[in-house]
Amino acid sequence: MSDDCLFCKIIAGKIPGRKVYEDDAVYAFEDINPQAPTHVLIVPRRHVATINDLGDGDAELAGRLVLVARRIAAGRGLAESGYRLVYNCQAGAGQTVFHVHLHLLGGRNFTWPPG
Amino acid sequence: MSDDCLFCKIIAGKIPGRKVYEDDAVYAFEDINPQAPTHVLIVPRRHVATINDLGDGDAELAGRLVLVARRIAAGRGLAESGYRLVYNCQAGAGQTVFHVHLHLLGGRNFTWPPG
Repeated sequence: MSDDCLFCKIIAGKIPGRKVYEDDAVYAFEDINPQAPTHVLIVPRRHVATINDLGDGDAELAGRLVLVARRIAAGRGLAESGYRLVYNCQAGAGQTVFHVHLHLLGGRNFTWPPG
Repeated sequence: MSDDCLFCKIIAGKIPGRKVYEDDAVYAFEDINPQAPTHVLIVPRRHVATINDLGDGDAELAGRLVLVARRIAAGRGLAESGYRLVYNCQAGAGQTVFHVHLHLLGGRNFTWPPG
């Protein structure tokens, strides 16, 4: 845990968050500024600042974020209508909190390019 | 391999593609309709139609796509300027080829929401 990380504080219950899912390695909660009817953030419990900071041994962890997103999407009836998963790496790509998070967006149509 | 899948054919060399990377499980190539100066598609060699079709045992594979994206981004000097990674699941989210693919976009600014 990083003491000054917003998402670490949400995971630890020190800041309120609307939890959607948790297991031993992954935590998910509602985005406070939703961009779609479903907008959930899926994060590793371990503090990892950016995708760049994932190690070569983190493949399973990185993939578990995707599988949890799939599971949440299915639970919300989005499996057929569809959903978009997005990682922003670094401020230039729109990353605002420096704790890796996968955006799950669904429940509306999406345009291309993705921002 | 699926006989009627465009990406399976590219991986097999039956249709030309601009290969960027390959290993035993992952293959990457340039998007033919790029939406950014860097726009690479990272796919599993195994034919998996959508994110919904990833199995519970596919966490490592799903994560390897992300780690390969990270590696390609670093190789192109995007680690600091940033990049966006996107999965579209189902046609409603913009998926047009039904073989799981992670979009790596970089080299320009990105807006929010992501499409």
